[in-house]
Amino acid sequence: MSKKYVYFFGDKKADGNGKMKEVLGGKGAGLAEMTNIGILVPAGFTISTEVCTYFYENNKYPEGLEEEVKENLNKVEEVMGKKFGDKENLLLLSDRSGARVSMPGMMDTVLNLGLNDETIEGLIKKTSNPRFAYDCYRRLIQMYGDVVMGVPHSEFESILSEIKKEKGAKSDIELDSEALKELVLRFQDLIKKKKSEDFPAEPFKQLWGSIKAVFKSWNTKRAREYRKINNIPDNWGTAVNVQAMVYGNMGKESATGVAFTRNPATGENVFYGEYLVNAQGEDVVAGIRTPHPLNKIQKGDSDLISLEEEMPEIYKELDEIRNKLEKHFRDVQDLEFTIENGKLYILQTRTGKRTALSAVKIAVDMMKEGLITREEAVARVAPEHLDQLLHPMLDPKAKFKVVAKGLPASPGAASGKVVFSSEKAMALLKDKKEQLILVRLETSPEDVGGMNVCQGILTARGGMTSHAAVVARGMGKPCVVGCGALDVNYEKNQFTVAGKTVKEDDCITIDGASGSLILGDVPKIKPELTGDFGELMRWADDLRRLGVRANADNPKDAKVARDFGAEGIGLCRTEHMFFSQDRIDPMRQMILADTKEERENALKKILPIQEEDFIGIFRVMDGYPVIIRTLDPPLHEFLPKERKEQEELAKKLGVDFEKIARRVEELSEINPMLGYRGCRLGLTYPEITEMQAKAIFGAACKVAKEGVKVIPEVMIPLVAIKEELKLQRDIVERVAEKVMEKEGIKIKYMIGTMIELPRAALTADEIAEFADFFSYGTNDLTQTTFGFSRDDVAKFINIYIDKGILPNDPFQVMDQTGVGELVKMGIDKGRKTKPELEVGICGEHGGEPASVEFCHRIGLDYVSCSPYRVPIARLAAAHAVLREKGIL
Amino acid sequence: MSKKYVYFFGDKKADGNGKMKEVLGGKGAGLAEMTNIGILVPAGFTISTEVCTYFYENNKYPEGLEEEVKENLNKVEEVMGKKFGDKENLLLLSDRSGARVSMPGMMDTVLNLGLNDETIEGLIKKTSNPRFAYDCYRRLIQMYGDVVMGVPHSEFESILSEIKKEKGAKSDIELDSEALKELVLRFQDLIKKKKSEDFPAEPFKQLWGSIKAVFKSWNTKRAREYRKINNIPDNWGTAVNVQAMVYGNMGKESATGVAFTRNPATGENVFYGEYLVNAQGEDVVAGIRTPHPLNKIQKGDSDLISLEEEMPEIYKELDEIRNKLEKHFRDVQDLEFTIENGKLYILQTRTGKRTALSAVKIAVDMMKEGLITREEAVARVAPEHLDQLLHPMLDPKAKFKVVAKGLPASPGAASGKVVFSSEKAMALLKDKKEQLILVRLETSPEDVGGMNVCQGILTARGGMTSHAAVVARGMGKPCVVGCGALDVNYEKNQFTVAGKTVKEDDCITIDGASGSLILGDVPKIKPELTGDFGELMRWADDLRRLGVRANADNPKDAKVARDFGAEGIGLCRTEHMFFSQDRIDPMRQMILADTKEERENALKKILPIQEEDFIGIFRVMDGYPVIIRTLDPPLHEFLPKERKEQEELAKKLGVDFEKIARRVEELSEINPMLGYRGCRLGLTYPEITEMQAKAIFGAACKVAKEGVKVIPEVMIPLVAIKEELKLQRDIVERVAEKVMEKEGIKIKYMIGTMIELPRAALTADEIAEFADFFSYGTNDLTQTTFGFSRDDVAKFINIYIDKGILPNDPFQVMDQTGVGELVKMGIDKGRKTKPELEVGICGEHGGEPASVEFCHRIGLDYVSCSPYRVPIARLAAAHAVLREKGIL
Repeated sequence: MSKKYVYFFGDKKADGNGKMKEVLGGKGAGLAEMTNIGILVPAGFTISTEVCTYFYENNKYPEGLEEEVKENLNKVEEVMGKKFGDKENLLLLSDRSGARVSMPGMMDTVLNLGLNDETIEGLIKKTSNPRFAYDCYRRLIQMYGDVVMGVPHSEFESILSEIKKEKGAKSDIELDSEALKELVLRFQDLIKKKKSEDFPAEPFKQLWGSIKAVFKSWNTKRAREYRKINNIPDNWGTAVNVQAMVYGNMGKESATGVAFTRNPATGENVFYGEYLVNAQGEDVVAGIRTPHPLNKIQKGDSDLISLEEEMPEIYKELDEIRNKLEKHFRDVQDLEFTIENGKLYILQTRTGKRTALSAVKIAVDMMKEGLITREEAVARVAPEHLDQLLHPMLDPKAKFKVVAKGLPASPGAASGKVVFSSEKAMALLKDKKEQLILVRLETSPEDVGGMNVCQGILTARGGMTSHAAVVARGMGKPCVVGCGALDVNYEKNQFTVAGKTVKEDDCITIDGASGSLILGDVPKIKPELTGDFGELMRWADDLRRLGVRANADNPKDAKVARDFGAEGIGLCRTEHMFFSQDRIDPMRQMILADTKEERENALKKILPIQEEDFIGIFRVMDGYPVIIRTLDPPLHEFLPKERKEQEELAKKLGVDFEKIARRVEELSEINPMLGYRGCRLGLTYPEITEMQAKAIFGAACKVAKEGVKVIPEVMIPLVAIKEELKLQRDIVERVAEKVMEKEGIKIKYMIGTMIELPRAALTADEIAEFADFFSYGTNDLTQTTFGFSRDDVAKFINIYIDKGILPNDPFQVMDQTGVGELVKMGIDKGRKTKPELEVGICGEHGGEPASVEFCHRIGLDYVSCSPYRVPIARLAAAHAVLREKGIL
Repeated sequence: MSKKYVYFFGDKKADGNGKMKEVLGGKGAGLAEMTNIGILVPAGFTISTEVCTYFYENNKYPEGLEEEVKENLNKVEEVMGKKFGDKENLLLLSDRSGARVSMPGMMDTVLNLGLNDETIEGLIKKTSNPRFAYDCYRRLIQMYGDVVMGVPHSEFESILSEIKKEKGAKSDIELDSEALKELVLRFQDLIKKKKSEDFPAEPFKQLWGSIKAVFKSWNTKRAREYRKINNIPDNWGTAVNVQAMVYGNMGKESATGVAFTRNPATGENVFYGEYLVNAQGEDVVAGIRTPHPLNKIQKGDSDLISLEEEMPEIYKELDEIRNKLEKHFRDVQDLEFTIENGKLYILQTRTGKRTALSAVKIAVDMMKEGLITREEAVARVAPEHLDQLLHPMLDPKAKFKVVAKGLPASPGAASGKVVFSSEKAMALLKDKKEQLILVRLETSPEDVGGMNVCQGILTARGGMTSHAAVVARGMGKPCVVGCGALDVNYEKNQFTVAGKTVKEDDCITIDGASGSLILGDVPKIKPELTGDFGELMRWADDLRRLGVRANADNPKDAKVARDFGAEGIGLCRTEHMFFSQDRIDPMRQMILADTKEERENALKKILPIQEEDFIGIFRVMDGYPVIIRTLDPPLHEFLPKERKEQEELAKKLGVDFEKIARRVEELSEINPMLGYRGCRLGLTYPEITEMQAKAIFGAACKVAKEGVKVIPEVMIPLVAIKEELKLQRDIVERVAEKVMEKEGIKIKYMIGTMIELPRAALTADEIAEFADFFSYGTNDLTQTTFGFSRDDVAKFINIYIDKGILPNDPFQVMDQTGVGELVKMGIDKGRKTKPELEVGICGEHGGEPASVEFCHRIGLDYVSCSPYRVPIARLAAAHAVLREKGIL
């Protein structure tokens, strides 16, 4: 027997079922499944995706397809009691694409197949509705002409406009049957003129023409691009669904509508939808007539009659179908229905899209209703979706124009007056409370203070892990980076974008979730964390194996992290503490010191400040580990770059301006990323590491005496050579023991290292000799493994993604093939030397779901991410387990 | 039986032999071996290195050592017919250190042990030479007081000066026995005053005190530092050699001297040395008296009588010993001898140090004399030593003062007038011929033209693979980089160093072999390549398995490379061709182009220039492969940085200045090393790669028609992702086929990639799908693997080496643990996909001997280095084979 290519559905039994999405596509599988469970679906058949694949491989259909289609068409005719091409009792067909996953708007559809100058007469007779018949006919010619024959849609539209003008009609609806008949003629003429052939009258010619067109639409440029973006393989192919037409526009007993089995915005367990009497599907969404609510609950105070009131029997039937579908599919369904002369047909069912808020509520509710398990409930909420819940967002109802797009660096929406310098921002906010957006070419550590007081940050340069992006995410502040369309002019205090000039004090809005820039203010909504959210997260926590910590540099952030469920600090950067105005001076004195003695004097001033910070963090993190990284950034980041600032500093510190300028010059680097930073500083100036160790253990001893359970872990950055770690470890250990002896208290602590350079991973066996823990700094590791500077990569990364060279930005989603290989190698080598080695990740990837799953799979102990991404990481870690179990 | 710790030698038999350097140290093994082959050596014994190790581990001597020493001392007394501590027939002893490898001047020695106020009387009686006896005694007290008892050497010297003043003596030699006796008394008083104890009279106390002092001298700070620098393990320990004293200063029948079995400067097979009658060892080198030549040949026209004439019998005996030793040790020996009252003793023999020139001659001669095999001859010449032969060097006889040291970036010495800009250098040399040294903070590709016309390059910044270093080595020009003591002031056209100001036009000398800077001119010598050199290199070629290619960017360099024996071009950089004044404009037009069309127009102008260059190179490399790398450096390197130059360019090209400034700004990068360069350019502007492929294959077809055997290999740089290579390969392949079709000729070619990023090595299996060959760019690979910017690393690399964090600069010697691991991984993965994959290396390490050996060991097909290092690589490759065979 030859392979089966066509699958019938109708009269309560279908050849296929809901699990056969690969063969039938999503739409076809849904129609088959509904048919099987006794829901009334207009009969039809699905030509499988394999035909599509065969067609592209062989440039023809498989043998026997025509017969199979005919046989199945016969069955459809039988069930519907009508005949395709019949002049008396005419069956019309629709022809729709349907791939394994939904590709909305990407592929083609042809409706009303089977009409021609002869068969239309029978339809008119049967419906006594010539206007309806001609409307169907002209739509067929228009769709067919466009989709199958390639006559531009616009040319049909201009003829339609002509006729409307001639008839003085404002909308299509005002055209009567005569006018539509005329339209049919002119459409036919248009095709003839453009294509030198007639619109085919023969119904089967129409059918096969449209089938081929649907298959071909799989391979249009826009479809291919869509697949590339959404990672859909080209060889999946699309199925074709040929189905009996039913009409919601046959009179007052007819209607059409869409419905969600629960409210998709809130998740409430309330039937929710819209419909229009005497209308076709597209009318509901076209906005010409206002759709009516489904039921009385939904209706509220509205004057519009609901379906529940207008057609109570039908509503009851629909409501039963709703329950049946939800029970059957165990998830919210998004339905399309048509009522043709009092008979209810379901045209489509699919899993309903939902907001993050509703996803959480639905999952928790369904678990409580016994519809799904706890694990399934956790599986139902996409981790990346949670971002919506944690930040204010643009009101979906607001109307606005996006003038430029950058990279969505840190989610949330913010509006405020433009300010171009951090100092200015801080000065402005000293006197009065204002909403400001900091706009910069790029930010540097000097801007941290300004970023902290502004509502949001917008930069013209930089990638997803640029300074601005990383710091903003850490602060939980909306941020858009790499917005190349911006032409920032610091001198004039303005920027231009899309031909418009925006000056200081003008208001703009940024949306860090989409990377959008909007001129002026836009209303925002602030979603709130519900009890359901907490419940779901607890279920996720029960499931996950991976620990989740947060990157936090101060007590405030640490508190946010704890509130979001972080089980420790995975990365506390000690340098951010020094950029505030009152603290940077001793740091600068230290850098400008000529002798060890001078340096030590400056460090003495820094010591109590650091200690105070650590005390705050330790108190908040009572009972949880805190990983503190020793000084990391190149020293030049702490010195002012501009001559004027250098002069001011010289005056303030009472040193020679020349000296400051010379030191800045000495410290300047061609490739600072690969420069004099990380442990290289601590190794050349051991007194810095010493001071930091003193502050850490001094603070630890103090809070321990208060009764706080303190678990300090000291992390040495940028190690590439085991000796680097050994020498730094020696210092920390020596200081720790000395401080604890002096304070008369013993605290357990660990000393470990960042693994953020390829050589560290390659020689992890050697490095593990001196490390109690590893923490992968995958930002830097991605930079060196790819040879990509995160600050410069914006110049070509989008070209790379567009050309398919990279599937996505490796600074957002960890490159598992290359960087991941190094991470794995480092774990294996490290644990070979020291099986009990604690291994985590503190790069930005620690909060990205796919990367979190990878971390789980390769056996990391924990991930650490910015506080606002902690819930995402917790959920992603649970998903990793579910995927392991085959539940996801 | 307990372990043996003491090894006797004397009277033609020794307990040890020449192979026992680990136990006896180099000196002890040499003394034992000479004794065994019947050469008269003052009897003595060696206390083994194991005693040293035991001493440091247990802080005491092993049991039984004292008895063993006594037993062996008895044997010495027997052989010498004298007795230690005897008042009549006194044996005096020397006590010298001797580690496995020579550590000149690092450890201590005590002579004349056994003298005291009583025993000296016997010595006086026996020698009838009280002055000699008291001179020995005062030397013993001085050495012992300093080395064993810790009284500073300078305090003895100031007493000596006192006495000389009192006696009106100008030199020690003028002091008579009474004066020396007085000196002995004052030395004894000094010790007593400083140490509150007497200088020990007891001979055995003297002996044991000095043995302990020698062991302790193994662990002085300077010895530890020396070992660190020279990679000598601390646990080797030193041996102690206790030997009967013999004296060359006992009268006219006595003498002392040093000799080389062949001339160490030229390698000539002529006995060569110096001696002094009635003198002690140190007198020969002290320069107070002029030493006499050994024989008549050496004497030449000198008035000084030679040993051959003065003591013909002794000379004959010495000459026989010379022959015996050379035959026995099969290498040139460096001897110390003493004639005591007509009796010839050999005090030391060791392998003679030699210049590169003499090393080559000696090796070839000895092979021809049948003394050594070909393989041994090849093994005898150190590859790194060849540098001396290939570049002019400072005359070893010249006297000069080194004012500062930088890194020895490119060997050879050069003198010339200081010039601070490349443009100025080029302008100066347009009109007249001058010797110039280009002095810069650092160089950039814009300086290539200036570097090319100057004699040498000196920079204040940068490491061994900085731009200046790499380009200078390629040009074979002397270069010193990273000379941090330089304070360069471009505005004033001067630099200061060591408190001196050097202006433009002042003359300086640099020595790129040592990294030295000297003010003024210094005479130089220019060694020539001899026939022996060619012969030795041919033997090396027969031995080696590894291919050797050169990095060369133009026909001239290619010719040098061929002359030095390169078997192909391993790296031809296409961008260096564009920095000359007449060529850079189209390149700049290309970069400034707004549209693809404008870009293509500019590229059209570049095409014929490139083609011409390739034609020249292909002709020179007839029959050998030429690997051409597509455009690599970031585009901003081609644009002028200064406003003035930008304005000039704007005028010249007829474009807006603003536009140029904006483009420079757009292209500027925070980390250019990790930026928009390499294949990233070719991927965003495929038309560049297209043009280059056209030029390569156009040139190849043209020379092929001339009858040249052309083997082009196109190399795509900076690949990290297989898709990058695939897309670039597609272009090159398409163009190649098209050009060859058009020209009607078929040429075999290959397309491959640089492996210079960690990700490329990590995913080499994927990349090999699209590569016919790999070439490791270990410069960049070292940068990214370590996270070291070669331009900035000078800030801390020396600290790292000083602290022992790194054994050496990884840009000079390949880091086998980290970078090497990646290289190995890449080869394994690449060959797994494609077993026939050709793999080479074109980083700077390709000319460094240890790295070349590593490349051999891990199975590379070839190394490629700058032309001037090709002979070094050839020899190193042969050495790698010899090491494998156990010959080295």
